[in-house]
Order: sequence, then C-alpha cells, then structure tokens
Amino acid sequence: MDYRKTFRVEPDSKLKLDKLDSAFKGKHESEDAAKAELQAYGEKLFKQQSVLYAEHKHSVLVVLQALDAGGKDGTIKHVFTVLNPQGVHVVGFKQPTSEELAHDFLWRVHPHAPAKGSISIFNRSHYEDVLVTRVHKLIDKKTCETRYKRIRDFEALLAENGTTIVKFFLHISKEEQLARFAQRLEDPRRNWKISESDYSERDLWDKYIEAFEDAMTATSTGAAPWYVIPSNHKWFRNLAVSQIMADTMEDLKLAYPKPTVNLDDIRRKYHAALQEEKNGKNKK
Amino acid sequence: MDYRKTFRVEPDSKLKLDKLDSAFKGKHESEDAAKAELQAYGEKLFKQQSVLYAEHKHSVLVVLQALDAGGKDGTIKHVFTVLNPQGVHVVGFKQPTSEELAHDFLWRVHPHAPAKGSISIFNRSHYEDVLVTRVHKLIDKKTCETRYKRIRDFEALLAENGTTIVKFFLHISKEEQLARFAQRLEDPRRNWKISESDYSERDLWDKYIEAFEDAMTATSTGAAPWYVIPSNHKWFRNLAVSQIMADTMEDLKLAYPKPTVNLDDIRRKYHAALQEEKNGKNKK
Repeated sequence: MDYRKTFRVEPDSKLKLDKLDSAFKGKHESEDAAKAELQAYGEKLFKQQSVLYAEHKHSVLVVLQALDAGGKDGTIKHVFTVLNPQGVHVVGFKQPTSEELAHDFLWRVHPHAPAKGSISIFNRSHYEDVLVTRVHKLIDKKTCETRYKRIRDFEALLAENGTTIVKFFLHISKEEQLARFAQRLEDPRRNWKISESDYSERDLWDKYIEAFEDAMTATSTGAAPWYVIPSNHKWFRNLAVSQIMADTMEDLKLAYPKPTVNLDDIRRKYHAALQEEKNGKNKK
Repeated sequence: MDYRKTFRVEPDSKLKLDKLDSAFKGKHESEDAAKAELQAYGEKLFKQQSVLYAEHKHSVLVVLQALDAGGKDGTIKHVFTVLNPQGVHVVGFKQPTSEELAHDFLWRVHPHAPAKGSISIFNRSHYEDVLVTRVHKLIDKKTCETRYKRIRDFEALLAENGTTIVKFFLHISKEEQLARFAQRLEDPRRNWKISESDYSERDLWDKYIEAFEDAMTATSTGAAPWYVIPSNHKWFRNLAVSQIMADTMEDLKLAYPKPTVNLDDIRRKYHAALQEEKNGKNKK
C-alpha cells in the first residue's frame, strides 16, 4: 500500500478527521509482523541521507504536529534515530519568548530551515500559530486566514530553493490520548512529561480538531503535502512515517556528486606521496 | 580495559604522539570480535541520553579533532547514530567567515554549547584556532599560548554550568592517512571528500603533530580531558570512543526527574476524564 496516496490531504477538499480511522493498521496484524519492513525502511533512510549529505543539493523539512500525547517525540525517537546526527537538526518550538513575539510568526522559524544536504525535523512548528493561537482566541479568523497564506508562501519559497517538505499529523483518538495520559501517570520514566495543562487542553479537543482540519485543508499543497497518519498503534505510525519518508527521498533521485577536483591531478599527487613514503622506509 | 585511563592525556606531562601506537586494538582481534561489545555500549548510550534529556540538568560536549582522514565523520556516523537526534547537535566548524573573523575566536563557538539535557558534537572546533592557524603561522607563539588559556577558561565556564566535556583526538599514522586517501580516490561514493589541499596539508604533518601535542598538553584538564584514540583500525576507534562516552555518562549518575506537578491532582483529573468518557459512551 502506498501510504503517500492513502494518507495525503488533498488540496481543495475539506478534511474531516473523524472520517479517518486513527486505529488503522494496514496489512500487518502486529508490531512483530511489521518489524522487518520497518527495519528495511530505516536502512533505506540511512543510506538516502548519506547521499543527500554528500550531494549537497536538496534538503528535507519534516513537520510533526499532533494533539498532546499524539507521539511526536516517539516518532522522532523510533523513526529518525536511524539517521546520522550529522545532517539532522531537530527543532522544538515551544511557547514563543517575548523577543519572538515582537516579530512576525515566521521569524523564529526561518533560521531553522534545513541547509542543502540536511534534514530538519520540526517538533511542533509554525503551525502552532494557526492552532493553539486560534483555539485560545489569540488571533481572529481573518488573521488565521492570512497566516495560512503566509505559510503557503513561506513553504513555496523553501521548496523553490530545493527543500522537500513533508508534514505529518499524528492522528490519535480521544480515548487513546486518555490511555496515554494514564501510562504517563504510572511510569516514573514518563512522569516528567505530564503537564498541568494536559486536561484543560483536552477539554478543547473538538476545537483543536477543527483548527487542524482547517489548517491542513488550507496548507496541503503539491510542494508541501500534509499526511494524516493513523497513530493509535505506535508501530503502525512508525511504519507509515518511515515509508513515506523513504518514498519521498527516493523521488529525489539522489546521487553522489562528481568530484570537484581533477582526479588525475590527485592521482599524481598520491603516487608521489606513496613513492616518498617508500623512500623514507628504505632509508630507515 | 578502562580506556579513559589508558588514553587520557595527563595534565602537566608533555604529550608525545609518536610514542602512542595508532594501530593499537586492545583485546579484540577483529571487528567481528568487538561487535557485541560495541553494540552494548551503543544501547547504553541511547538509554543514558534518554535520561539526560528528561533530567534536563547536565549537558555533554564532545570535541572531535584529527588530521585529515582521521575519521571524524566516520566516528559520528558509527558511534553517534545510535542517539536520538532530538537532543543531539552536530556542529561542523569550517574556515571562519569574514563576520566570524571580525570577532574573537570563541564567538562563533559559544552559541553551540549544549543546552541542559542535550549533547553537542563538535566536528572540528575552537581548537582549529590553535592548530591550523599555528601551522600556517597566522598567529604567533604568544597568541597561541594566550588562546590555550582562553580555551581552558571557556571550558571551565561550561563545566561549571553542568557541561561534561570529552575531547577526542583520533590518532592515525601517516601511512594510514595515505591509504585512506587512496580509498577516496577509488570509491565514487567518497570522491567528493577529496580536497585540493589534502597533500599540501599532509606535507605539514610533523608541524600538525607538534601543534596537537602542545595544544592537548596545555588544555587537557580535569574538567575537560583529551583522549588520544588509536584510530588506524576504525572499529577499535569506535569501540574506544563508545566506551569512554558510556563510562563518562555513567559517572553523571543520571536519573529521571521527579514530576513537577502534583500527581494526586493529576490522578483526580484523569479519573474525572475517564468517567466522562464512560458516560459519553453510555449515552451513545
């Protein structure tokens, strides 16, 4: 199954999240059954990244968004740990500082756009500025619409400059969120992730869903598509994200670059150095 | 064998690199024999990083230096790819820009000091400013001595703020460098790494060695030790770096933090939400 086709948010058609099954798990019955496939995508990604880095022509921007406990951190940990950290930048966007608030909403984001050869992963992103701000009525409808347009423009700019943009919404059900909150309560290794605002934000669930639907409908473009990933099953989420990443990078037709130096010149230098080394050894 | 003891540069004793065997390989005969041990350190590092990130108290700075083809990129790829990219920053320091040159030599380095909970890996570093600059006579002896002191001060500042500093010199022989240059010539996936200056810099080998010896002697401190890693065998290099990293992080006695919220409050909120969910379901 081509998950890019299945999970892509089509531009110009209104997204309805409650029509998409967050517990979908494709052809595999269990995590174990999916393991080999996940590992194969991981190896593919590692290799593709190596060429991306060497070629120094394209870059990749991954945007991860979800409701609380949707699995943003987990996706990074379980999908992207296969990557060489040289050439990957994970950037978390928290509540803006007062300096950031004194600028336009893309000001703090732009410096983290990926350089040629590298991958940036946004854990939350500029989309917070049309999500949390809208739900909490910090911006009005008109500002929100304007920001959709600014986001499309911004992403078009990056795409024109060689950046491939892949945006994931990790889709969990409200029940699954509660189950994950329970796990955080009972696991001392996860207690630290509990936030005072978890339940007050949960009360705004429907408003968040609506904000996500509108934002994704407005900003899923050919150059910067949104994918809604069924994420109740973490292993399926990892599999789908891996496949989409590997397929997207395959489309770039990455290739090791030709050397910028004259190889014959270098060969002559090499043989001179080799001769010198041999002479040195004979003298000893 | 405790590689921290074996390979540490002792403060106040003049380092002589030609007395250290760059082809050392410890108790293992081959890469295959070392594989299980390397994997175990990798798993340890991954777990330690998880706690480091959660605890948000310590940070780790890794400095990688070597002569050309010494294996800086390879070490990152083969040792540090086990890490979750969320919480790791690899920073490469190339020839300074004109803006950077208009400032003191630590100006471009300081912003990349690791934040609490995270690991920064410097691929080359502020040490270039007492190495390449000295070999090419861009600074005089007095400036170089002053910079050693400034580096010690800078690293002391970081250490006082909770940063653990680990500095690796990847030690290869001059013959091994030439063998690696040959591999780059013959492997199309590595051609792009060939630089025009490879052989002219190689001619300065002895001067580089001397500059490294002086710099490491002057800056290997209790808070920021240098380790000279025998690196002719890449697998042994990876093993030694992994062990030193894992042992260093173990000494931090990392622990998952206590929750900052009142868990009983959160439990009450959880049960209320659970009840509401059940009621909702009954109504349907």
